[in-house]
Amino acid sequence: MLMQTHESRLSALREELKRRGLDGFVVPISDEHMSEYIGAYAQRLAWLTGFGGSAGSAIVLKDRAAIFIDGRYTIQVREQVDERLFEYQSVPATSHAKWLAANAPDGAKIGYDAWLHSRGWADMVGKALAKKGGELVAVSSNPVDAVWADRPAPSPAPAVVHDESHAGRSSADKRAEVADWLKAEGLDAAVISALDSVAWLLNIRGADVERTPVALSYVLAHADGTAELFIAPEKVTPDLVQHLGNAVTVRPRDAFEQALVGLAGKSVAVDPDYGVAAISSALEAAGATVVASRDPTILPRAIKNPVEQAGQRSAQARDGAAIAKFLHWLSVEAPKGGETELSAVAALRGFREETGLLKDQSFDTISAAGPHAAIPHYRVDEDSNLPIDPGSVFLCDSGAQYLDGTTDITRTVWIGPGEPTPEHKDRFTRVLKGHIAIARAVFPQGTNGSQLDAFARQYLWQAGVDYAHGTGHGVGSYLSVHEGPQRIAKATGGQAGTTQELHAGMILSNEPGYYKAGHFGIRIENLVLVEPRAIEGAEGEYLGFENLTWAPIDATLVDAGLLTPQEVEWWNAYHARTYEILAPQVEGAVLAWLEQACQPL
Amino acid sequence: MLMQTHESRLSALREELKRRGLDGFVVPISDEHMSEYIGAYAQRLAWLTGFGGSAGSAIVLKDRAAIFIDGRYTIQVREQVDERLFEYQSVPATSHAKWLAANAPDGAKIGYDAWLHSRGWADMVGKALAKKGGELVAVSSNPVDAVWADRPAPSPAPAVVHDESHAGRSSADKRAEVADWLKAEGLDAAVISALDSVAWLLNIRGADVERTPVALSYVLAHADGTAELFIAPEKVTPDLVQHLGNAVTVRPRDAFEQALVGLAGKSVAVDPDYGVAAISSALEAAGATVVASRDPTILPRAIKNPVEQAGQRSAQARDGAAIAKFLHWLSVEAPKGGETELSAVAALRGFREETGLLKDQSFDTISAAGPHAAIPHYRVDEDSNLPIDPGSVFLCDSGAQYLDGTTDITRTVWIGPGEPTPEHKDRFTRVLKGHIAIARAVFPQGTNGSQLDAFARQYLWQAGVDYAHGTGHGVGSYLSVHEGPQRIAKATGGQAGTTQELHAGMILSNEPGYYKAGHFGIRIENLVLVEPRAIEGAEGEYLGFENLTWAPIDATLVDAGLLTPQEVEWWNAYHARTYEILAPQVEGAVLAWLEQACQPL
Repeated sequence: MLMQTHESRLSALREELKRRGLDGFVVPISDEHMSEYIGAYAQRLAWLTGFGGSAGSAIVLKDRAAIFIDGRYTIQVREQVDERLFEYQSVPATSHAKWLAANAPDGAKIGYDAWLHSRGWADMVGKALAKKGGELVAVSSNPVDAVWADRPAPSPAPAVVHDESHAGRSSADKRAEVADWLKAEGLDAAVISALDSVAWLLNIRGADVERTPVALSYVLAHADGTAELFIAPEKVTPDLVQHLGNAVTVRPRDAFEQALVGLAGKSVAVDPDYGVAAISSALEAAGATVVASRDPTILPRAIKNPVEQAGQRSAQARDGAAIAKFLHWLSVEAPKGGETELSAVAALRGFREETGLLKDQSFDTISAAGPHAAIPHYRVDEDSNLPIDPGSVFLCDSGAQYLDGTTDITRTVWIGPGEPTPEHKDRFTRVLKGHIAIARAVFPQGTNGSQLDAFARQYLWQAGVDYAHGTGHGVGSYLSVHEGPQRIAKATGGQAGTTQELHAGMILSNEPGYYKAGHFGIRIENLVLVEPRAIEGAEGEYLGFENLTWAPIDATLVDAGLLTPQEVEWWNAYHARTYEILAPQVEGAVLAWLEQACQPL
Repeated sequence: MLMQTHESRLSALREELKRRGLDGFVVPISDEHMSEYIGAYAQRLAWLTGFGGSAGSAIVLKDRAAIFIDGRYTIQVREQVDERLFEYQSVPATSHAKWLAANAPDGAKIGYDAWLHSRGWADMVGKALAKKGGELVAVSSNPVDAVWADRPAPSPAPAVVHDESHAGRSSADKRAEVADWLKAEGLDAAVISALDSVAWLLNIRGADVERTPVALSYVLAHADGTAELFIAPEKVTPDLVQHLGNAVTVRPRDAFEQALVGLAGKSVAVDPDYGVAAISSALEAAGATVVASRDPTILPRAIKNPVEQAGQRSAQARDGAAIAKFLHWLSVEAPKGGETELSAVAALRGFREETGLLKDQSFDTISAAGPHAAIPHYRVDEDSNLPIDPGSVFLCDSGAQYLDGTTDITRTVWIGPGEPTPEHKDRFTRVLKGHIAIARAVFPQGTNGSQLDAFARQYLWQAGVDYAHGTGHGVGSYLSVHEGPQRIAKATGGQAGTTQELHAGMILSNEPGYYKAGHFGIRIENLVLVEPRAIEGAEGEYLGFENLTWAPIDATLVDAGLLTPQEVEWWNAYHARTYEILAPQVEGAVLAWLEQACQPL
């Protein structure tokens, strides 16, 4: 049934392309803001192919079609997408440009929606097609939408004020910083199109995208400190207007493209990673000069101010108590049998809701039993739901959105009865040692996360194993759970790191892991805050990490014989502090469990 | 006296520029091969300014002139160059392009010798000048040479055959590999202009450049496996001709430019890092297509074959014995007082000459007493020569050229009597821990040196200190002591690392250090060979380092309390092996000293 539906959808799209004189069309998972998570209205790839992953794309030609996915989704694509309709293509082994160069007919006109792709992508693919006499054509409206009968409307949720008691800085102050940058660079305006950038700059939040509290909108920030906010009128409340004040003009979202045309003769900053091709095209066609520059809100947003730092500490203390209740619940219920990945998700959500302050999860909980834990980005649904078997390893990666902070934590626990195998303990302990190496790292100002990455991997490497994801990502303040520009990751390859140096005030995750395909997976994740380190006799400025996340790590999985005295010391101090922070928030059996779980090694 | 001379030289150059209608001229330390070390004939900057460093440049305008140096030479330039003649400019804070943009008169014609600069440099500087209506003009002959009356002639040393018993591969085999690459890339020929690339490809060596056994020459390598060698006829012996065989045509070095013109219509690979601007210009003017590609000999040269690896082990064993004799000599003579940096250089050279196999030093010995050791690239001469004081730290970084291998070793020792301070021991031990961390590193195939770099720095970072140079460089086989493309270094900044992944067979130095300006310096350097590591249960290919350099490290400077049991184990195993390798080569008092120096901690 499902497959027939996708077959008919694909046919309908091909008919539509034919009507428009196109030989093909590219369907990404993307929105007008190059968001990581996108609204239901923009889930065109899922509608067309059935693919439920968070990264991927398809190209539909007249007589063949392909879906492009990366190594994370090799298994999932086989389960969800009919290979007879869409052949499977792996990136980065291939790319749209390469595949079209090999498979598009000579002289092909391939359509794309310029509001969903970067300029860089369009240039590259356009060049590949031109070599075969073909052309990449920006469509005036998306042909998928034309055949997607029940396409959800964009969310009508109002945009809300994010109070300065949480934001820590006024929007006027942030806009002044952007204006200073524009003046220093000799620019007239900046296009702020990333949704979390808009939210940070104007101190507003929304509910238009799952898991990330942002409102669909654009900003033009001007060198005089004023700004224009382009947002659907139904989202605009009197409170919002009052908050934005006179220096921010509120205009309909539909007026954005025309406003770009109004920048004729100006020099305008557009971030090539977040500004879609249509933005640069509109500016250039109008006679504006597009200057490719990093979105000027990205670095100041990443460096959390003292209010945001304090908010994050409160959010983490609260979230840690919910996690402790969940881990206690798991320790009692799961060994009886009968619990499942989905029941664990529900229980955890319940404990977080008990705080009374939960706004949303910060991403879909990764509740992964047995072999599912070996899929780093596993997402449970009714079809995949596995029982949490007694005598197995269970991994749970989850996060919350609170007004004062965004959390992200992974714990991997042994579900009794019985004992983990020596292999479980060896791998878990090596992951733990890497986690501690990052937590204890000290490094000079000027260091980037790629330089620290191997600290997290070294003990796994010694055993001839590794993990195929980054070690750490930035985290927003009641914003995106994945936030740039800083990362801790290998400098090259998939999910590569960045050369962004770390600054005091940045938040990062610390999440090494190990995955044995088909068997089990391990990840230990806390968030950390970059802090200045005063060292006697230091030459220059040094930094380290303040730990932010507090919840017991499962000692059952630790081979203490592999730990150094310094690592044991870290473990004991971490758990003593965890107890100190969480004990006042729990009682009864949970408190007793917590006390036990926080015992020194 | 000396300063007057430089003043008159500068005046003479300005007169010459005037005659040629030039408003200025750029004087780099460079030769036609972009060599790191250059022959005396090419030492134009030293002649003009008095600067004796190995990296720097000058720009001479009509009424002002500047010398450009990096952070290593801030002190040295003040001692050697008259600021009234040449203002001091620091790179990378400024650059030729920036300085000329700010200081060249509008419409200035600035000359440069296109045989001494890269195309990238010429493009950048040319653009900067064009913005002011000026022009960068390639001169037909170097105006410095026109006024440098006693300029040394290029060395007449013969080129010699490097026997396959040392090279491990025939030149025909190497040329076939280059030819295969050319064919795969759809290219007709490659310009091989780096002197060590020529030497490696043809299995020849020379004596035209100090410290590096290369012969001034170029190669054009063709896709059919043949090659043309352009070399001064007086360097060509019958032995050489016989060795090169029929597939290599020997032509005069002067015929090289004309041969480039003969490549009209062909696609020719030129390495932008080693091919000077004149080469690309000649090719393009003739109608050839220049394809910027990495010199195809660089990677195969860096991956030492089994014969080269065995040669390196022999060379290191031999060199280690000379070092042991030297360290013993130091331990006996220096505490008496009266020894100096220069007497140490002479003694060390003597011990190496005793091997009967020394061809040359691989670089000028860094013999650095007291505060001189805090200058990582210190070079002793009669003027700077310090006594090696009893009760001080002495650093010696040196290397040898043997037919079977190039060595590079640094030892830092305490000169008795008395005891080093706790600070000396703390810093030395942290450097040692970093050295051991690199020596013991295990990492997956695909890892580059930048990912390992922080292992070497971590213990210094914990104390709030660092060192401002890379951790490791590649080393040639009876070739350059600094050889690319692999490095262990920070990914960004000065002396940055590369993204070249490490391959089994590559040789690297492992040389963390610590420098307290005005007081003391520490560096511990061994060479290591990348080797495959068989690890039970490994997922994928893993690599580690085989140690190559054997000589005692001074235990007097170690604070054993800072070492982990694993580090002590490494130390003891290292010294046990050192004794095993060196003891058969020494006797009497040296043997007794060696036995003592190799005791377990």
